[in-house]
Amino acid sequence: MTEARGVLRDVTPEIVAEVRAMIAAARYGALATRSPVDGWPVATRVGLAVHEGSPLILISALAAHTAALRADPRCSLLIGEVPDKGDPLAFARVTLKCRAVEVACGDAVRAAYLQAQPKAELYVDLPDFTFMRLVVESASYNAGFGRAYALGGEALRG
Amino acid sequence: MTEARGVLRDVTPEIVAEVRAMIAAARYGALATRSPVDGWPVATRVGLAVHEGSPLILISALAAHTAALRADPRCSLLIGEVPDKGDPLAFARVTLKCRAVEVACGDAVRAAYLQAQPKAELYVDLPDFTFMRLVVESASYNAGFGRAYALGGEALRG
Repeated sequence: MTEARGVLRDVTPEIVAEVRAMIAAARYGALATRSPVDGWPVATRVGLAVHEGSPLILISALAAHTAALRADPRCSLLIGEVPDKGDPLAFARVTLKCRAVEVACGDAVRAAYLQAQPKAELYVDLPDFTFMRLVVESASYNAGFGRAYALGGEALRG
Repeated sequence: MTEARGVLRDVTPEIVAEVRAMIAAARYGALATRSPVDGWPVATRVGLAVHEGSPLILISALAAHTAALRADPRCSLLIGEVPDKGDPLAFARVTLKCRAVEVACGDAVRAAYLQAQPKAELYVDLPDFTFMRLVVESASYNAGFGRAYALGGEALRG
């Protein structure tokens, strides 16, 4: 997704492990959705947990991304290293191409989210909050200049 | 864009100043574009500078967002505080709804970018890199729970 096919490197088990570790460690990310009002791409911040191998978000009915995902579940999630000094593009990040699926607030889902985001206890039970699972269909991993990889979703789920 | 109209707060000159300061300080952001291949929303990281009051990006022809912006210049840019401990949604961030406009690599544009991103000297003159200005049409500022604002683009440009 990030680099043209010709410059992609081969995906090794180590690369898959790097991306899986990035997904497991991410506590927030930038979500791209499509506005149902005017079709504009919208980038918003989401809090993250992982449940059954997929990123899990808890979103408010007041937030633009919630209406957007209900109208069109196609989205992508950008996570990765926080850039420090130097070129921000030298730091590793991955774009996960996902499909959002609403999930009921069962005990396991609630516990997984609160383990990653204990402060969410303040609003997790409010009626206008909804859990969605982001099912990863593919990923574009950019580990710095000249280190781009395209990964299938199967290797990253579960 | 982030919150429904009913919960938005009044925009004061101090709020405009906060968002302008956030734009001026941002060295990177998450860009949402629309894939020309399948229409999927795509979130990617971009390096940022400011020129003539607008965010300025320098993008590679190899990157997915470049083809996306050439096919559809509508995009949005998420910038803001880097979440630390606690709830990542308690940290201020703004979504800038933008239209990307390609700009020639004149001396002033080049100097503005390199001032913000000195390491980009390595690739700024390569033929497959292009500058684009992100003209802000509106903004959705979320300064933490219960502190959401919708701003027009005029107040944030120039």
